[in-house]
Amino acid sequence: MTNRIGAWLIGARGSLATTTTIGLHALARGIATPVGLTTATPAFASVPLAPFESIAIGGHDVVDISILEKAHGLAAGGMVPPALVSHLTDSLRESDRWIRRASNTGRTQQDDIDAMASDIEAFASKLGLSTVVVVDVSSTEPLPADQPAFHDEHLLRERLTTPGQRVLPPSSVAAAAAIQAGAAYAGFTPSAGMSLPVLQQRAADAAIPFAGQDGKTGETLLRTVLAPMFAARGLQVRSWAGANLLGGGDGATLADPEAVRSKLASKNRGLHALVGDDVIAPLHIDNVPDLGDIKVAWDHVNATGFLGSPITLQTTWSAYDSTLAAPLVIDLVRALALASQAGQSGAIAELGCFFKDPWGSDVHAFAEQTRLFQEWLERTGILVAARVDAEHASAAR
Amino acid sequence: MTNRIGAWLIGARGSLATTTTIGLHALARGIATPVGLTTATPAFASVPLAPFESIAIGGHDVVDISILEKAHGLAAGGMVPPALVSHLTDSLRESDRWIRRASNTGRTQQDDIDAMASDIEAFASKLGLSTVVVVDVSSTEPLPADQPAFHDEHLLRERLTTPGQRVLPPSSVAAAAAIQAGAAYAGFTPSAGMSLPVLQQRAADAAIPFAGQDGKTGETLLRTVLAPMFAARGLQVRSWAGANLLGGGDGATLADPEAVRSKLASKNRGLHALVGDDVIAPLHIDNVPDLGDIKVAWDHVNATGFLGSPITLQTTWSAYDSTLAAPLVIDLVRALALASQAGQSGAIAELGCFFKDPWGSDVHAFAEQTRLFQEWLERTGILVAARVDAEHASAAR
Amino acid sequence: MTNRIGAWLIGARGSLATTTTIGLHALARGIATPVGLTTATPAFASVPLAPFESIAIGGHDVVDISILEKAHGLAAGGMVPPALVSHLTDSLRESDRWIRRASNTGRTQQDDIDAMASDIEAFASKLGLSTVVVVDVSSTEPLPADQPAFHDEHLLRERLTTPGQRVLPPSSVAAAAAIQAGAAYAGFTPSAGMSLPVLQQRAADAAIPFAGQDGKTGETLLRTVLAPMFAARGLQVRSWAGANLLGGGDGATLADPEAVRSKLASKNRGLHALVGDDVIAPLHIDNVPDLGDIKVAWDHVNATGFLGSPITLQTTWSAYDSTLAAPLVIDLVRALALASQAGQSGAIAELGCFFKDPWGSDVHAFAEQTRLFQEWLERTGILVAARVDAEHASAAR
Amino acid sequence: MTNRIGAWLIGARGSLATTTTIGLHALARGIATPVGLTTATPAFASVPLAPFESIAIGGHDVVDISILEKAHGLAAGGMVPPALVSHLTDSLRESDRWIRRASNTGRTQQDDIDAMASDIEAFASKLGLSTVVVVDVSSTEPLPADQPAFHDEHLLRERLTTPGQRVLPPSSVAAAAAIQAGAAYAGFTPSAGMSLPVLQQRAADAAIPFAGQDGKTGETLLRTVLAPMFAARGLQVRSWAGANLLGGGDGATLADPEAVRSKLASKNRGLHALVGDDVIAPLHIDNVPDLGDIKVAWDHVNATGFLGSPITLQTTWSAYDSTLAAPLVIDLVRALALASQAGQSGAIAELGCFFKDPWGSDVHAFAEQTRLFQEWLERTGILVAARVDAEHASAAR
Repeated sequence: MTNRIGAWLIGARGSLATTTTIGLHALARGIATPVGLTTATPAFASVPLAPFESIAIGGHDVVDISILEKAHGLAAGGMVPPALVSHLTDSLRESDRWIRRASNTGRTQQDDIDAMASDIEAFASKLGLSTVVVVDVSSTEPLPADQPAFHDEHLLRERLTTPGQRVLPPSSVAAAAAIQAGAAYAGFTPSAGMSLPVLQQRAADAAIPFAGQDGKTGETLLRTVLAPMFAARGLQVRSWAGANLLGGGDGATLADPEAVRSKLASKNRGLHALVGDDVIAPLHIDNVPDLGDIKVAWDHVNATGFLGSPITLQTTWSAYDSTLAAPLVIDLVRALALASQAGQSGAIAELGCFFKDPWGSDVHAFAEQTRLFQEWLERTGILVAARVDAEHASAAR
Repeated sequence: MTNRIGAWLIGARGSLATTTTIGLHALARGIATPVGLTTATPAFASVPLAPFESIAIGGHDVVDISILEKAHGLAAGGMVPPALVSHLTDSLRESDRWIRRASNTGRTQQDDIDAMASDIEAFASKLGLSTVVVVDVSSTEPLPADQPAFHDEHLLRERLTTPGQRVLPPSSVAAAAAIQAGAAYAGFTPSAGMSLPVLQQRAADAAIPFAGQDGKTGETLLRTVLAPMFAARGLQVRSWAGANLLGGGDGATLADPEAVRSKLASKNRGLHALVGDDVIAPLHIDNVPDLGDIKVAWDHVNATGFLGSPITLQTTWSAYDSTLAAPLVIDLVRALALASQAGQSGAIAELGCFFKDPWGSDVHAFAEQTRLFQEWLERTGILVAARVDAEHASAAR
Repeated sequence: MTNRIGAWLIGARGSLATTTTIGLHALARGIATPVGLTTATPAFASVPLAPFESIAIGGHDVVDISILEKAHGLAAGGMVPPALVSHLTDSLRESDRWIRRASNTGRTQQDDIDAMASDIEAFASKLGLSTVVVVDVSSTEPLPADQPAFHDEHLLRERLTTPGQRVLPPSSVAAAAAIQAGAAYAGFTPSAGMSLPVLQQRAADAAIPFAGQDGKTGETLLRTVLAPMFAARGLQVRSWAGANLLGGGDGATLADPEAVRSKLASKNRGLHALVGDDVIAPLHIDNVPDLGDIKVAWDHVNATGFLGSPITLQTTWSAYDSTLAAPLVIDLVRALALASQAGQSGAIAELGCFFKDPWGSDVHAFAEQTRLFQEWLERTGILVAARVDAEHASAAR
Repeated sequence: MTNRIGAWLIGARGSLATTTTIGLHALARGIATPVGLTTATPAFASVPLAPFESIAIGGHDVVDISILEKAHGLAAGGMVPPALVSHLTDSLRESDRWIRRASNTGRTQQDDIDAMASDIEAFASKLGLSTVVVVDVSSTEPLPADQPAFHDEHLLRERLTTPGQRVLPPSSVAAAAAIQAGAAYAGFTPSAGMSLPVLQQRAADAAIPFAGQDGKTGETLLRTVLAPMFAARGLQVRSWAGANLLGGGDGATLADPEAVRSKLASKNRGLHALVGDDVIAPLHIDNVPDLGDIKVAWDHVNATGFLGSPITLQTTWSAYDSTLAAPLVIDLVRALALASQAGQSGAIAELGCFFKDPWGSDVHAFAEQTRLFQEWLERTGILVAARVDAEHASAAR
């Protein structure tokens, strides 16, 4: 077995996946520095994380645009340097090789799961990967209505094998395929994915580590950094209003009121946990196509201080969403691969710093999440290093 | 001995001291809630901190305006409710009783120190206070040029007792008086105060706990909350520019380029510690009298993310500076009184969360400071509770 | 006949009407300066506008709170100085005298109109007023669906006199009463009011001057000031997004999606007229009760400059909405009274600078509107002065 | 004589001149649209302005970097599209042909003037240009102390011809050369240039049209758009604070307190003219190299409304300064060439909309300036068209 690992992206031809792909190639070749990666900060220099050049990329998608073409589009929008894309032309052309069409066989959903799991297994075996991490970076789906099969393995199995039944939304089909293929899993969107209890149980039974949900990249990151300040100082937050402007594919997706509902709920959950449920927190996401992949977020906080005196804070955050998210995707791949190597399974709560709505944790304060992640990563790194040493020793005997 | 403690304010007739005085009266009478006090957050419910009604207030000043008159002025400016000032008229009239003129005998500075120390001692003994905490809340002074007497007890003593010599700036005369009176001390301004090595040595020799320096109330608080986010995520901050607008007396004082120098240095120190010394960080404070006691701070952060993509963050903070600061002054009085009761002395590094430029600590990240303070306060609280129990037991025998 | 004129406010007990009432009393007594009144700027010093002390106030409302009580509430929220309200106690107590209950007889709508017109006529005759100006400052209504009676006098009359029929929304009942009473009329809200063609025709037939619609106070004012800059410089505005936060009664009213529709349409009309229909212009109004009567508006403009280079402009406007609007109400009363005296009738297009959606004009650029208003006011003032002189001369013969 | 005209740029290798050069080539070839040009707005479709392809470019500079190299640098900084620069490679290579070294003969300043005037005359005669417009777009100079020779032609002439004397700053040497060469002149910087009375007199005597001073591109443009709104509405502006962040060469130049003085004075002049001299208006320009050619300006306006209620407005403007300015340079070339053709001379006050500190005018309100410019341009266009017709008629005889 080699020391290579795999990143398998659901939505592999989207903006975020393409940025991740460009970034991994650039890091592997040493023509980009790992700015924006938590796992590359000096604190973790001694943790045995996967080197960038050891990470293979593949994935599923439902569209056909080539990665290279997509990359040129991103460069035109100013998100990545055109020269970088030109430089990586060959690598990006190669990247299409391991992207498969997400299955929609028209037969049973179990057939779809089987086909997608096979794709992942083939990726692992052909490339001799020790671990694969599946990351869902596809477009946000409307949340499905709850139903008994989401809580009952027996019922789920029955529905999955009944032709014509579509019990799982696409993101959960992908999650089921990851479990079946024995891959670790990260849910970077607010879609159902592996959030369904029956799938989390499957993953735990299969001893798979997983983490989610909904990448904490911009405005929500900022909020979970700022809100604890008000709490620590005993200041009463009265309202926290937010306006988000974004273009790109994401802007269009989130203009759909159904799709956006899961996003808005996810965005506000941490805020309410930190400053209280009675805080007025109106929040909007508007599709502003001319902004392209830039996301602009304005927040207005109104608080009451000592003797009733008013405090207002406004923040305006402006950044390319995909370049904020892509390094976190790479972080998750490296961290979950390490968790796998350490034999951990179930929801890894200590990865909460990467998510708006952390599975297995009710800690939302970013500084505390960061501390928990740092401690976990160091601890897990030591464990893996010890295992590796033991294997080497055993191999040497 | 009673359980009463004393707060002795240097600059007792200024905006901040008056707000603190109004606030303590209102808290003691139960007509205000302790919003804005760190020590009143739920985390510390079991710590034996001084109740508000047990805190007496006195202080020194060089001006003669009555506290009541000053309070009416603050109410007119919108900082505190006029009805509250009316309600507290009698208490505020009383407040002048324990405010003494800061000494400037025209003889030696040691004579001034003696006179001021006597004032503090009389306050403690007449009111039967178990502990007095001196807090410097006076206007920012220009920083004095360094000189040998700031480092040499022998030399200092000689200069203090030579008529006509003015070796110490006023804030340090006050600090020396605090030490001589055996009071704990907090330096809420960036003035020299107890920052001189020779005075810190005196304080340590006298087994006095002290903390400083320069209250972290608004923009700097925000910066030390935000900067660690960039660091944790591995994002490269390139520039962090700031503009501060304020009126009131503070605005006029800080319009003096000499006085403002210590303030600006103090404000930027934490930022550079958190995001690196090569970050461009221009910073201005402008006197805008029409804003009264409101401080408006705009910050513009330019950072580089993954693959060189730009990230900008702007923040605008608007608040009455004195109502942000007053609860911290009360926090410091309660915390340093507890430290005294626990027998601690020297610089209490764990109070760093209250200061722009923390003595005895190089931790600037606010979340970490908060955690250190919380652990310290709980630990110290348990110690004091145990002592009190022991005293009671011993008294009961 | 005296030289007194009357202001008759629909919604006479609301925040805006109460602020207007407080303000007129204060101006009449000389204890406030006419800050915020366009008609009191130096340009118009020689125009024979009604002096403040000659303006009587009355109005209709459906609620019963006394003006004094309402005024105390506004003072508590920080909008007007508490001392001013105390000072004007007697005058404000008097103000209830001429406020009548808006009629809802339960019989025909014509009966309601008759009753309300009688109220206005009684106000004019008892107080010997030469002119009355009715201003609709009531809460925004949902817009009624269009119907034939809005376009046909005969049909309208029939429906108005049929018991049980409620063809007109309340704001239009009030407008019809104004016409019937021979009063000039200003529509300060986006409600139907006098915007119905059949009522505008009635007003023209009755030789009544009127103006509307929807007071241009804050964000829209700013937009119609800024948008012409982009146009003049040939810069291409791509998107203009807006977020409005407000509390008070207005915030609650506008949280109703039906009521807000007319407001949002009205707010965006000028913008599209100035920068083009293809500009993306998402706009939200959120009810944030803790802000009280303060309205905070954030706008984000994205434009393309020379050679495709990006330009962004953000604005944040924060102000008490009623104190922005009240002086405009007084301006409209003075200007429409002058128009009456000059014998003008129909929609006075030159008053467009006061409205989001100006009747009789497609000029939205504020600077141009201001110029047109100035020219009109000077011209009309000269006309009125000449008439007065002629009357005096005739009276003297 | 051909119909070609010439643009002669002082500082021809700087960011602004290079952007202007790129832009003119792109416009001439029809591969850019005239976004950002006032003279290309639909209002002026019928004015006989010089077509872009008829404008030749030359100029003086003291540095040697090639235009193509400079253009690549600007593209790298994101200001102009890299593809555009590649596309224009040949044209940009050509552009160096007519750029001469600004003279500094080491002999008398009159010698320098003679040499520079010769350069301009050679440009005109070799290329058969009917008119040349000199535009000063060089770096801001410190303002020279006033002296008698700035007011006395005789004295000036004497000093200019005395070896070793350096009576004029470089920008005024260039202005004198323009006059001597019979070229029209625009002062786009706040440097002395043609602002010296003695030079304005020379220009008038030479029947040369000229305009200045200091291009109104960003923050000042915004201020002269917004300030008239407060005035029109009778609102009292109390303070208007500004913070400017910029990198590029301009940022470094303006970090020099001497050089910045003229800039700051120029920026605030219009503001004070519009809202009054007693408005507090602190203003800073900070050099923030990482922003490159982007200028970020934050303004905070505090005003008092009706009954003393507060109004605050914040604006944040972010744009590439050179792409804002370059189209105005082209506008000025076209407008001054037309003025020349119409036989106008002296300060053309109607070009005030382009300048922070308009020569010959005290109108600062942008909307009014725009109206004056539009009327002037239409009027002048008709005049020129009539002349041309007359010439044709005369030629045809």
